[in-house]
This record gives sequence, C-alpha cells and structure tokens, in this order.
Amino acid sequence: MMTQSYTAACVGAGVIGGGWVARFLWNGIDVRVHDPDPESERRCREVLANAERALERLHGHRPEQPGSVTFCADLESAVAGADVIQESAPEQVALKRRILADIDRHAPADALIGSSTSGLLPSELQADMQHPERFFVAHPFNPVYLLPLVELCGGAKTDDTAIERAAGIYRDLGMRPLWVRREIDGFIADRLLEALWREALWLVHDGVATVEEVDDAVRFGAGLRWALMGTFQTYRIAGGEQGMRHFMAQFGPALAWPWTKLMDVPELTDEFVDRIAEQSDDQARGRSIRELERERDDGLIAILQALRQENLAAGNVLGEYEASRVPSVTATGGHDLDASEPLRLIEDRVQMAEIDYNQHMTESRYTEHFGRAATELFHVLGVDQAYIDAGGSFYTVESHTRFLREIGLGETYHVTTQVLGSDAKRMHAFHRMYNTATGDLLATSEQMYLHVDTGAGRAAPATADVQARMEQVKRAHAAIEAPEAAGRPIMSLG
Amino acid sequence: MMTQSYTAACVGAGVIGGGWVARFLWNGIDVRVHDPDPESERRCREVLANAERALERLHGHRPEQPGSVTFCADLESAVAGADVIQESAPEQVALKRRILADIDRHAPADALIGSSTSGLLPSELQADMQHPERFFVAHPFNPVYLLPLVELCGGAKTDDTAIERAAGIYRDLGMRPLWVRREIDGFIADRLLEALWREALWLVHDGVATVEEVDDAVRFGAGLRWALMGTFQTYRIAGGEQGMRHFMAQFGPALAWPWTKLMDVPELTDEFVDRIAEQSDDQARGRSIRELERERDDGLIAILQALRQENLAAGNVLGEYEASRVPSVTATGGHDLDASEPLRLIEDRVQMAEIDYNQHMTESRYTEHFGRAATELFHVLGVDQAYIDAGGSFYTVESHTRFLREIGLGETYHVTTQVLGSDAKRMHAFHRMYNTATGDLLATSEQMYLHVDTGAGRAAPATADVQARMEQVKRAHAAIEAPEAAGRPIMSLG
Repeated sequence: MMTQSYTAACVGAGVIGGGWVARFLWNGIDVRVHDPDPESERRCREVLANAERALERLHGHRPEQPGSVTFCADLESAVAGADVIQESAPEQVALKRRILADIDRHAPADALIGSSTSGLLPSELQADMQHPERFFVAHPFNPVYLLPLVELCGGAKTDDTAIERAAGIYRDLGMRPLWVRREIDGFIADRLLEALWREALWLVHDGVATVEEVDDAVRFGAGLRWALMGTFQTYRIAGGEQGMRHFMAQFGPALAWPWTKLMDVPELTDEFVDRIAEQSDDQARGRSIRELERERDDGLIAILQALRQENLAAGNVLGEYEASRVPSVTATGGHDLDASEPLRLIEDRVQMAEIDYNQHMTESRYTEHFGRAATELFHVLGVDQAYIDAGGSFYTVESHTRFLREIGLGETYHVTTQVLGSDAKRMHAFHRMYNTATGDLLATSEQMYLHVDTGAGRAAPATADVQARMEQVKRAHAAIEAPEAAGRPIMSLG
Repeated sequence: MMTQSYTAACVGAGVIGGGWVARFLWNGIDVRVHDPDPESERRCREVLANAERALERLHGHRPEQPGSVTFCADLESAVAGADVIQESAPEQVALKRRILADIDRHAPADALIGSSTSGLLPSELQADMQHPERFFVAHPFNPVYLLPLVELCGGAKTDDTAIERAAGIYRDLGMRPLWVRREIDGFIADRLLEALWREALWLVHDGVATVEEVDDAVRFGAGLRWALMGTFQTYRIAGGEQGMRHFMAQFGPALAWPWTKLMDVPELTDEFVDRIAEQSDDQARGRSIRELERERDDGLIAILQALRQENLAAGNVLGEYEASRVPSVTATGGHDLDASEPLRLIEDRVQMAEIDYNQHMTESRYTEHFGRAATELFHVLGVDQAYIDAGGSFYTVESHTRFLREIGLGETYHVTTQVLGSDAKRMHAFHRMYNTATGDLLATSEQMYLHVDTGAGRAAPATADVQARMEQVKRAHAAIEAPEAAGRPIMSLG
C-alpha cells in the first residue's frame, strides 16, 4: 500500500466537487474545501454522506484512516499549502479563468491544478496563470466517487510531467486516467455523450419516443455492452471471424443513410422543456433525487463488483486499486512461526459480493475462506510458488465443515488453524472461523491433506524442509487443547 | 411456468438468427431453421454452443426440456406449420422483401412474422405480402440470447393485435419488448447507437483518439450509467434537487456549441478502414473472436446477475423471467417421486471457468455442485420460490466431503442423492459425484440440513407437505444400501 502524504484542496463543492472530496477523504487525504455559496457546506456534507454509504458498500469496509475535511471561508486559505487542487466551478469560461488565476496566485508554485470542466479548452483556462505549466483538465464523471474515468488534457502551456504526476495521483485514488492527447472541445467522452444526447432529444422532440422509452432502449440493450466494452470492440465481435474490417464493409454503408438530424439541435422552447420535464417526472415515479441517487449508486456498485469478479473493464481498475491497498492477507508469511497457539492466517471483512439476499455471508464463501486458510498454512510451511513449480503440492482429500453462526456485510472475521497430525505425506488440520468483533465461533472445518507429486500425479513425501516445519507446528500445537469437534462424525438421525 | 406449445421457425441463421434459435430452444420451443448458406448449420451450431454455455451460467442450470432444432434445406419446409417466424437475413431491403414474401406464402396465414432488421421500415418490408397484418419488426441486440431488448414496430398494414401477441411471446422468452410507436428508419435504439458510432468514427478519423481510447472513454465512465439508467434519468439526477428542468437550463446551451461533425460521415477510404482495423487488432491483443465473445458473455452475465440482485434495469427483466420459470427447475418437482434409487439431480459438464491450472475441476467447485444438488433436493421436496417467499428454507449446518478423483475440462459428471434420515426440522443426506462416462466415484458429501423460519431466524418444522415428502423419500431410500462412508469421522493421524 502506498503512503500518500499530500494535502488536497477542492474549489467548488457541488455534486462534482463533493464527489472529489469523497475520493480524497476515502484514500486518507486531508481536504480543504472552498465554495462561495453559503449553502455549499450543507450540500457537500450531503454528497459526502451518500458517498460514504456507497464506498463502504463498494469496498465492503470503511477506510482505516479517512482524511479530514475543512471548509474554508476564502479561496486563499483553502489552496495555500495544498499540493493537489481540483477546481469544479460552474461551466463558464470567464468565471473559471478568474477562479483558476486566483488559485494559481495563492497556491504553492509547484502544486498541481486540475479543472473538472467537461468541455472547455485547457489553453483558454490557463491563459491568466503565472504558472500555467502545472495546470490541466481532469474531467471526472458523476458520481465521481464511483466511476473510475478521469480524462486528462493539457493546454498549450502545460508541462507533460504535470499530467504524468497527476495520472499517478488519480490512479492511486482508484481512478482510470485517460490522457486526451489532442486538445478539442468536449474531449473524447463528452463528444460521445453529446452525440447520444442530441439524438435522444430529437427522438423526444419529434414525438417518436418518451424520455423513458429512450432510456429503456439504452439500458435493456446496447447500454449493457457499452458498460463492458465500449463501441469498437463490440462491433469487432459483431464482425464475426473476419473481425473489424468485415464489420466496416457490412455496416459502413448504413452510416450514410438519412437516419439522423444530429447537426441541428432542437430549439429548447418552453413547451419542449416542459414536455421533457413532465415525462421525466413520470419516469421517476415519485422517487426523490436522493432515492434516485442511492438507486443509481447501488446499481453502479453491483455492476462494478460483478466486473471485478470477472476482472473485466471497470472491475479491473477496481481490483487493482483494492489489491494495492491490502498489503498482504497473511501476517506470518516468511517470518519465524509462533506456534504456541493456533495460527491466525486469515483476517478479513465480509464483502458485498459474498452476501446472500438475507445480507449474510453465503455458505460457499465459508468453504472458500477455509480453503484460503489451508493455502496460507501450506505457505507458512514452505510451499511457495517455487515449491509448486518444482512439482510438490498439498491436495485436500477430505473436509468436515460445521456452519454455526451467520455473519453480516462489513463485519470482520478471522480464521485460526491448528495442526492435529502429520506424517511424510499427510497433514490433518482444524480451522475455526470467528467473528472478530464479538468473538463468536462462526464455523469450523476439519481437513485432511495429501502431499502429491503433481508431475507423476500421485501421493509423495513432502521435502525434508516442509516435513520439518509440519513437525514443528504439530508438536507446538499438540500442547493446545484438541478441538472437541475433531474426529467426530456428522450426527445421525433416525 | 407458462406452457408454451408453439413451433418457431428462424429464416437466416447467422449471429442474430442463431441467437434467436438459442432463445427459443432454451425456453423449450422446437425450432425449424433455414439458411441457404451451406456453412450455416456449422456456424449456427457454434453460436448455439456459446449460447448454451452462457445461458447455463446466467441461470445457473440447464433447461429441463430444451426444444429441438431442425435444419431445413428449403424455406418452405421450415416455415410451413410454424406459429412464430423470425427473419434474420442480411440488411438489404430487396432481399428481405423477397424472403418475407416467400415466408408469407408458405406459412400459415395466422403465423406471426417478425423481422430482425435494425433499421429498415416495416411498411416497405411488408409490401409484397398477402397477409401483411401479422408482420412487424422485432429488432434484437447481439448477443440475442443475453440482451433482453427487442424493439417492436409495425408498418402501415400491421394489425396492432399481432404486435400485442408478439410482445407476450418475447416477454415469455425473457426479453423486454419496446413498442416503437412511430415508424422511423433506425427505430429508437439504432438512432442512438448510430449517433455515438458516428462521433466515435470522427474521433478516430481526426486522430484525436484510438479505437481503444474511445472504448475506454465509454466503459470506464458513462457506459456504466447507460447500462443502468440510460441518459435522461442520469441527467435528471445530475440536475440535483431541482431535477430535469434545472439540468436543461444549465447544460442546454452547451448543445449549441460547435463540438461535433455529426451530420457528416467520414469517408471510409481504404486508409481509414486500415487504420481502424489495425487499432482494433491492437486492442484485441491476440484474443480470437471466440475468446472475445466468451469474455463479452461472461461480462454481460456478471452485469445481468448483479442487476438482478439489485432488481434494477435489465436485472428486473431477468428476475421476473426466472421467477416465472422457477417451478420447472426440477424434473421431479410436482410429479410423483421415484425414490427407488438415489435421486439423480445434477448432470453437467466441467466448464472452462471451473478448472485449475492443471486442467482439473477445482475443489471449491465440487463443494458448489454438492450445494446445487442440495438445492435440487429441497426443490424436489416442495421448497420452491413460493415456499421460500413464505419464510421457509433449509440451511446446511454440517458437511463432510471426500475428494477422491479428479475430472477434466469438458468431462461429464452427475450427482446422486440419498436421504439417510429426517425429522420435522432436520434432514441428513449423502451425495455422490460420478464421472458419467467412466462411472468413477469422484467425491462424496454427507450433509446435515436444518429447516428454518427465515423471518424469525430460527429452526422451525417444515410444512406438513414437505415433511411428508421427506418421509416418503427417506423410507424409499432406507431400502438402498447405506453408504459405507456415512457416519464416519475423518481418519486421524499420529
């Protein structure tokens, strides 16, 4: 886990600014916030409350040391001494230029300054700065605390090293920087969003569809593919065995068909805006904006976690981020063994993906965590990757598991392991899983392992070194009381 | 579960046609297929193999009674006697008109005829038909066997009742019909896809981004929201407490900014197509089209299952579909049990995702399949969705598993289940997993279950009906020899 020891400042604390504050805090960064609106602190704290709920669900735990947030009455006191500054003011070029010049004046000369603009050109925004070389666009997506994408784009006076430093910082925050190499209005993502949005407006404008029908046409079909692969990779697959070239040949001509009125924009008359607003009210079915936000967050969390399990798309970003923040599951690996009590090999927290509809950890996860404890035990005894590559391994040949108590989302548990017996080829162990907070015994698993020569595919003695370590742990553990459940059959019924 | 007793015909059996065949088969419908391409049967069977793998993963089981597929040499024999006909020929209006007229001539006069066209007008397509009133567009999305959306659109001569009947049929196939009320080129979804695709092509054409950067700009950001909510609901939330009207006021003006070249289409010169094809090759990183398809399917399955857990968007469609089909999961459910030998509840084949680096099924999958056998057992005894919704369920409290032999990728296995004991609240069972081809015993699992009142969170007697069925199976199984491994502890070592 990397140590982050900088201070961040957020100028502008609406939905986007508040989302940035949440990203920093969750990663242990102290944040100083300035927004001239007297309501901003209240609003920002509401965003933070939603973000906290969402991030705890996403990661299955709270951060050990969240950062602290300080609301500052003036811009100067927010940015003075900050190392990373994020501007999220309204999307008006003159206003942003003025604010960015202010930030530039009061911040340390080497502080990084990113703007959340979704489409304004960095060359224009940095025009009034004394130190424009450390300025860049860092365009995030709402909700900033969940969606990983951040588009980075430098202006004419931006130094590439500033963007490189920024990319590292955003990556450490769990984001996925995308360096937009050519400075254009709207960058990459908003060009695409805007195209879809224009066509969507025309469909409603012309009475072809309601806002809900447009949304349904996206979320029940292509939207699912977009979340996974975007558009080109999807079409590559549609091209079949001959791939992209075939797809272009087959569907290219349709591009020229008169399907669209995209270059024009429907006039936003009062009547048209009213129609959209009314249809949108229908679609919301009475849910408040906060309810919709939570529904959105829950859906995004579910998608992100599902993709993490498959290690695909945004789930890959999430997986790498989480891996970078868990130093190592096992405390004992590589150290001298203290076998005066059962080995404590697994400590963890129940994750979102592990729970059933009753919000408790599902049975198969108990089995999986006992399996992890067994793997850690083998590791402690010297069965590392080199050992496995050389053809030695332990297989589980028998297990007797008792499921005693439930454990809920976010609760901590640990597994202890006691070695009951061993010989040259076999080992007998007893694992106990506890609720760490309450001390309750959740489950036990008695297991028998066979040492195998994986090349030959048959049982074989472990190496002398592994045998010696098994013996050492077995002797030490013999002094501990044997588990009363060991060596017993499953009770029988009439 | 509704009883579906119609016959389907698919004319055109490429990627889209094959996807339709899979949808029908999985739902127990017999399908007759015609495609003039001599390679079509081979290709269609490949699509079906992928679809079978995907649907089994999505739903967690195979269909009890899949439909049968018959490849027909001529169109007439495919559509004569069919009740529902799906045309998926290449996207050429003259060709489709001719094929549809042929279908119309040979099919029963009241058969429903849907076209998979993604943008051609139904009024044009039905022009040469004798019975155009039963014709409509039914535009699905690739992969048809996973994505729920199907756009329905009638032409000038279409009878609304035909669309209503079709909507019911597609809904029963697990799809989400969207009735496009105004006939326009591209309907709703392809208008939106096309807008995004045009802008994406320009970004690559102008050297702003590579195809991979465009895809990344979608899948790490807005694509995740599109999968969940589409575009209008997303923007409603972005509008904050004041909702859609505020969003329109705030971001409306940006629409008129010169961000786009959408009305023009980049010319598909050889050089430009080459560039896209090469960048697409880079992005694929050597993965074949089949590998990409499986990756896409796994990702979509993960997203769909995640959304089902949250009961949101496409997950809601999936949840309702599965709920409507639950009673059919078990072959024996609702029938008289034949308990003269151990119940054979699970038959399956080792999947790619289940194997370890040695190409053998991993331990945790044995446990999972024994868990599936237990679930099937409960089902056979009458524990169906209604029973669970009413608050009754069995929990596994203890299991003793022996891992005896390995099984490799693609090999078939089955699990038999013998009930050893039961009382009002408990049941004791012994599962055996066999290699179906060799007859080798692979593993056994002795398990104890406790019946619980999930509302109260404590053990409670099963209903009288479930108790009676447990008793019936237990008595019959008492006549079978008891497994020698039952009731024994794990052997101990010195």
